[in-house]
Amino acid sequence: MEAAIGVLVSQFKAYAGRDGSSDTLSRDEFQKLVKSELSGFVKNAGDPAAIDQLMSSLDKNNDGELSFLEFWQLIGPLASKRGGFSQ
Amino acid sequence: MEAAIGVLVSQFKAYAGRDGSSDTLSRDEFQKLVKSELSGFVKNAGDPAAIDQLMSSLDKNNDGELSFLEFWQLIGPLASKRGGFSQ
Repeated sequence: MEAAIGVLVSQFKAYAGRDGSSDTLSRDEFQKLVKSELSGFVKNAGDPAAIDQLMSSLDKNNDGELSFLEFWQLIGPLASKRGGFSQ
Repeated sequence: MEAAIGVLVSQFKAYAGRDGSSDTLSRDEFQKLVKSELSGFVKNAGDPAAIDQLMSSLDKNNDGELSFLEFWQLIGPLASKRGGFSQ
């Protein structure tokens, strides 16, 4: 489990680090991550407008960037749906 | 990324499925999972009382079981700490 968590952290950093700080994902970095890494999980992964909307829904503090924990809120429900969990 | 998410889902199910429904983790299943899978991330992973307290803090609906999404709330901050993120 820890290895899998490590992969998610390092992948986040790989995309987040493209334009300076690897602490947060910019809109553009988020688009690229979703399109390349989550196209099987996220509907309309190739549609910039849909991904922008998804980002806005996750960007709780509205700073135009996604922190790791804001990003983590996206993955949970996706993973839960993939696992077929009822709750 | 999707493969790593898949590992987290299947590992959760492996432990959750030990006593009947693989939809939720019982207290005992959670103890076993943390001890075997997250001992590098969770302090006192071997201390049942500490893990019980951790479970109570995650068990939002107090049904004595952890849903996948309740469990997911544990992993986020652990992963964030491991990644050294500031937020």
